[in-house]
Amino acid sequence: MSDKKTALVISAHSADFVWRCGGAIALHQKKGYDVTIACLSYGERGESAKLWKQGPDMTLEKVKAARRKEAEAAAQALNAHDIQFFDFGDYPLEVDTDGKYKIVDLIRKVQPNFMFSHSKYDPYNTDHMYATQLAIECRMIAQAWGHNPGEKVLGAPQLYLFEPHQTEQMEWKPNVFLDISEVWENKWAAIQAMQGQEHLWHFYENVGENRGNHFRRNSGGQAGGKNCQYAEGFQAVYPRTVEELD
Amino acid sequence: MSDKKTALVISAHSADFVWRCGGAIALHQKKGYDVTIACLSYGERGESAKLWKQGPDMTLEKVKAARRKEAEAAAQALNAHDIQFFDFGDYPLEVDTDGKYKIVDLIRKVQPNFMFSHSKYDPYNTDHMYATQLAIECRMIAQAWGHNPGEKVLGAPQLYLFEPHQTEQMEWKPNVFLDISEVWENKWAAIQAMQGQEHLWHFYENVGENRGNHFRRNSGGQAGGKNCQYAEGFQAVYPRTVEELD
Amino acid sequence: MSDKKTALVISAHSADFVWRCGGAIALHQKKGYDVTIACLSYGERGESAKLWKQGPDMTLEKVKAARRKEAEAAAQALNAHDIQFFDFGDYPLEVDTDGKYKIVDLIRKVQPNFMFSHSKYDPYNTDHMYATQLAIECRMIAQAWGHNPGEKVLGAPQLYLFEPHQTEQMEWKPNVFLDISEVWENKWAAIQAMQGQEHLWHFYENVGENRGNHFRRNSGGQAGGKNCQYAEGFQAVYPRTVEELD
Amino acid sequence: MSDKKTALVISAHSADFVWRCGGAIALHQKKGYDVTIACLSYGERGESAKLWKQGPDMTLEKVKAARRKEAEAAAQALNAHDIQFFDFGDYPLEVDTDGKYKIVDLIRKVQPNFMFSHSKYDPYNTDHMYATQLAIECRMIAQAWGHNPGEKVLGAPQLYLFEPHQTEQMEWKPNVFLDISEVWENKWAAIQAMQGQEHLWHFYENVGENRGNHFRRNSGGQAGGKNCQYAEGFQAVYPRTVEELD
Amino acid sequence: MSDKKTALVISAHSADFVWRCGGAIALHQKKGYDVTIACLSYGERGESAKLWKQGPDMTLEKVKAARRKEAEAAAQALNAHDIQFFDFGDYPLEVDTDGKYKIVDLIRKVQPNFMFSHSKYDPYNTDHMYATQLAIECRMIAQAWGHNPGEKVLGAPQLYLFEPHQTEQMEWKPNVFLDISEVWENKWAAIQAMQGQEHLWHFYENVGENRGNHFRRNSGGQAGGKNCQYAEGFQAVYPRTVEELD
Amino acid sequence: MSDKKTALVISAHSADFVWRCGGAIALHQKKGYDVTIACLSYGERGESAKLWKQGPDMTLEKVKAARRKEAEAAAQALNAHDIQFFDFGDYPLEVDTDGKYKIVDLIRKVQPNFMFSHSKYDPYNTDHMYATQLAIECRMIAQAWGHNPGEKVLGAPQLYLFEPHQTEQMEWKPNVFLDISEVWENKWAAIQAMQGQEHLWHFYENVGENRGNHFRRNSGGQAGGKNCQYAEGFQAVYPRTVEELD
Repeated sequence: MSDKKTALVISAHSADFVWRCGGAIALHQKKGYDVTIACLSYGERGESAKLWKQGPDMTLEKVKAARRKEAEAAAQALNAHDIQFFDFGDYPLEVDTDGKYKIVDLIRKVQPNFMFSHSKYDPYNTDHMYATQLAIECRMIAQAWGHNPGEKVLGAPQLYLFEPHQTEQMEWKPNVFLDISEVWENKWAAIQAMQGQEHLWHFYENVGENRGNHFRRNSGGQAGGKNCQYAEGFQAVYPRTVEELD
Repeated sequence: MSDKKTALVISAHSADFVWRCGGAIALHQKKGYDVTIACLSYGERGESAKLWKQGPDMTLEKVKAARRKEAEAAAQALNAHDIQFFDFGDYPLEVDTDGKYKIVDLIRKVQPNFMFSHSKYDPYNTDHMYATQLAIECRMIAQAWGHNPGEKVLGAPQLYLFEPHQTEQMEWKPNVFLDISEVWENKWAAIQAMQGQEHLWHFYENVGENRGNHFRRNSGGQAGGKNCQYAEGFQAVYPRTVEELD
Repeated sequence: MSDKKTALVISAHSADFVWRCGGAIALHQKKGYDVTIACLSYGERGESAKLWKQGPDMTLEKVKAARRKEAEAAAQALNAHDIQFFDFGDYPLEVDTDGKYKIVDLIRKVQPNFMFSHSKYDPYNTDHMYATQLAIECRMIAQAWGHNPGEKVLGAPQLYLFEPHQTEQMEWKPNVFLDISEVWENKWAAIQAMQGQEHLWHFYENVGENRGNHFRRNSGGQAGGKNCQYAEGFQAVYPRTVEELD
Repeated sequence: MSDKKTALVISAHSADFVWRCGGAIALHQKKGYDVTIACLSYGERGESAKLWKQGPDMTLEKVKAARRKEAEAAAQALNAHDIQFFDFGDYPLEVDTDGKYKIVDLIRKVQPNFMFSHSKYDPYNTDHMYATQLAIECRMIAQAWGHNPGEKVLGAPQLYLFEPHQTEQMEWKPNVFLDISEVWENKWAAIQAMQGQEHLWHFYENVGENRGNHFRRNSGGQAGGKNCQYAEGFQAVYPRTVEELD
Repeated sequence: MSDKKTALVISAHSADFVWRCGGAIALHQKKGYDVTIACLSYGERGESAKLWKQGPDMTLEKVKAARRKEAEAAAQALNAHDIQFFDFGDYPLEVDTDGKYKIVDLIRKVQPNFMFSHSKYDPYNTDHMYATQLAIECRMIAQAWGHNPGEKVLGAPQLYLFEPHQTEQMEWKPNVFLDISEVWENKWAAIQAMQGQEHLWHFYENVGENRGNHFRRNSGGQAGGKNCQYAEGFQAVYPRTVEELD
Repeated sequence: MSDKKTALVISAHSADFVWRCGGAIALHQKKGYDVTIACLSYGERGESAKLWKQGPDMTLEKVKAARRKEAEAAAQALNAHDIQFFDFGDYPLEVDTDGKYKIVDLIRKVQPNFMFSHSKYDPYNTDHMYATQLAIECRMIAQAWGHNPGEKVLGAPQLYLFEPHQTEQMEWKPNVFLDISEVWENKWAAIQAMQGQEHLWHFYENVGENRGNHFRRNSGGQAGGKNCQYAEGFQAVYPRTVEELD
């Protein structure tokens, strides 16, 4: 176990981490954290339309391989410490008790200072909300003194829900904005690594810019706000514990 | 205008600030902030039963004077920088446009780094939720460049909603806990300054202890949590803007 | 002040009490309560279309008189103890501080064991939700020891929100159903006293029957439920305090 | 009264209609509607920072005049049928009963097939949510047969809540997306007419593009969705009444 | 695959479709749609009390047969295009991955323009809310290009949640009312085909009438509303995409 | 089957019933009810930190035995009629169809007048919210006439959600307070039987006292409230059915 601060991303499909918290990954790496990305599936069935449209020769294994390659390139662009692929399948993502214990193993190994996952609700994509349920359940198991006694027990890391595609439909409400201006180039490179989903590139560029506007507003606007250019928003599940307000 | 950091409490009645954010006041004073308390009323009609029970000789002015004295003693116990009494009346609290401008004047004078007020909803005490509406409305007016042009315009201070008496009925959900252990003695002294509401002393001692438990849990519990003894909880209205997550 | 148990209905317009809690009024009268009805307005502008359609000779005073007559007949059919008309105007209903104090006077005079008013939210009819706000605010004032010191201070009566016209749009959720079968004839007579709103008679007959079904279900259904024929639903604002669960 | 279909926008400040429903205005004009815009204030105090920063010679009247000119230019770019300025003041917007009746007069004159206003909740800008309350209240008054008897009474037009600046903080959830691609040039011209708020131009260009993406998704995505480029989102307050589902 | 427009009902038990969307089925059939009904179970254990009360000779198979016969008669009364029985069992309804794929097969075969299922929440009947989860999950799988590559992928059909038995307890809020007056006779015949649940006939007649009232109100009421006699209400899960507002 | 009134507690882990409804158990026993406690697990992995910290010799069986002993002692202190251990495992608690049927068997055997379980939502402890789902689902199965035909079918008992550890985070809102003053000694003895969780004793003493304050307030406060010293709060899932309001 490293002395470094750490973070863990639990991503339902292999590209989610890019659009939704790529900036946070690159930024915290730059600040000295080790950030680990866990892809529960490759999004091979449900988020790879472009590959499947290539024709009848396409196979599940080929899609997985292509998706993995893209995700690794994106992780590299973000300087992520590690990326793990659980290959649990998608549409639907289904994880049994053994699968949960593998996620717990990773959580305990990483001992994250904070975690990331999806919105609580998503009627477009049930894999997303299921990944969040898993994150919450596995965090709980990792806190159990009787699970693999002798292992280091997990504390109480924050769980940040990252931005879904249609925020209002997912009942997602960000309560923290993170300035990612200084690592935007990394995020933009990671986005471009997602060759199969080029139709989303500009959408998430717009998101980054508009969240930058929200950051400026909430940090003071025209009366002293910070000149942030790009930001990401997150919804914290648990209350913070502080020694001073801000 | 001082170079110090500042905070502003908007309290519907003259005792609310004691039970609900007395610890935050004392703690931030200790950390070098100037904390100003604004009491919109004395709670003279609705929160002074003990005085009114003394008999037919009691008058509104006597009650106000007694309540003011207690509030000043409490503010002193908390080392608060300043306490202001607006005397808008209570049960019901009613503030007209001029009254709002007086609150705006104070907000602009203090230029708070953050503010405190009541819960958004309170079916037991409409003065409380009205005070919160006023805090939000006056914060907005203080941000208007066309209000008293030339004055320093307000930035975007956080508004922390402090703990109401029956949290669940008020739909209040804290998202930050503040460790007030080191100033608990000040808060306890301020609480005891509220001679007219002795029936609430022990209640809020219990609240302080139990919020300490919640702080311990959320900071890591038995796996590295901070040994906090007393805490206060707050619900932030606006999203935070940060350069690093925690 | 009587030794009888009492209840107080706060009705925005003069017919609301009939459709929404006529059964509760008749039933509790039968059980020995004194039930007082307070009509904040006659619904003269907004709920008297049939009268206004009679032509250009119709006047506000004529409409008020007709509405009052109907309401009194309905109150009589329900054997209500008293009906009071505040004549605050409607569409919009607007009540100033003096008006609030008149409502407080009535609350203190009645000293109700429980109160009734409208749903918290109503985007079709803002008078309705405003009446509820008034009920909550005036209940608070009536509890203040400093309001008209020497008068008997109000305890903590439950406030039951009665059924609005389109329940789901008003976000109204009943948590108690009252069996009104034994007084249905009274309610049906009171409904028929509302000559100006005959288009609503059958609607509320259906409501009474269907709430009877909900009563049967929630009391045990086919496995021991009570054979209720007509019911009314209410949403309690405050928690109950009991010595035994049921 | 025209035989044309009509719509009415109730805008708290004089620029809100541009960012939030400019496309809907231009589109429905093109389809033969007469769309009327009602600006309750000029946003002269709170949304004119650029003008006030010009120095101590700026006056409220100068700001209003400049804001009015911009709004008229924007309305023209959108081919709006009419724009009305109520000049009720801003930060805070406050409307008395007479003011409400003026709004009712306009509603009855326009007899809109549907209306637009702000989100229900807005802790950044209480004028916005107050405008929505007014829209709902004045719609109700316009429906009252006893208000100015003899005038044509209002039916039940839909009220569409247009997009606020920080959607998630306002608890705004769109349930309809409108394709405005064919009138985007008009909206973009209207946006550029807002010389005092250039910092918002690109933000709302991004919003238009990203709502276009949401339109594509919800109309079928890669499996038959319509190739919409720009869209606006709205939250309908009332249920629709239809003769066929879609 | 037909060129006709189509719709698909996902009904937890074999009678749900009758009470909750029988009018919509008959109406859209009349308009030229092919409407398919999928009964996930017969409601053989939990919704067949009358049959089970006949005595110890009753068996699960007999109940299923009787329930199937009733459902087929009802479907015929509604002129439904097709009715499918999945026989997954009830109380509790439990569907494994293979079962989900069978539902997906049907969805893809039907290629519905819109779908129907239950409310999101139902603490009385967990089968109902589980059916809705399945509808949402299977809709997602049917949209996956990698699921049975080569098959026609699903677009983005609306999912309408039909009316549950106690709407307010289920947190169901209709946002569209459909006029079913012209097919009421079909619905009434289908209702009467449900011999085992005669205690519900009149209840749903009342519902049909009262939803007719809500339709009239929301289409203009006394000022131009449509004279609808019977209606059904639905809650749309996804936003609409339109080219003109209404 | 006894003629006595009965109640049933469904507790995820073996200590939950003590903190959360120990008073209700002791009180209703005293009033002549037979109260049965069902512990779905011992909390052996997740709520036994003190035991696991004793070192590597600790085993799952030893922990279960110790936990069972404590729970039995607590049940005895409360004079509970019966305590059953299902031993389904914890962190995570997972129950298959057979397990559900065992719970249904107990429900049918007890035929409870009312039931208790956890809050609907709990992001700290998914076992808790899962136990509530089970309680609701098994209640439904127990109501099915086709489940084990011939057995006595369940009516419609209320389900009371007892107090979770951090009420606001669990979105738990009590709507009934029960005076447990006369059995506080029993509850305090039961609490002290929980040797492994001594860190929670004082916390729940404070909760008991503060809920006593809430009871006093809601029963009339200083104007006639009952002098309750200790109370427990519950959230009822279903509406009540009554013959008189209170």
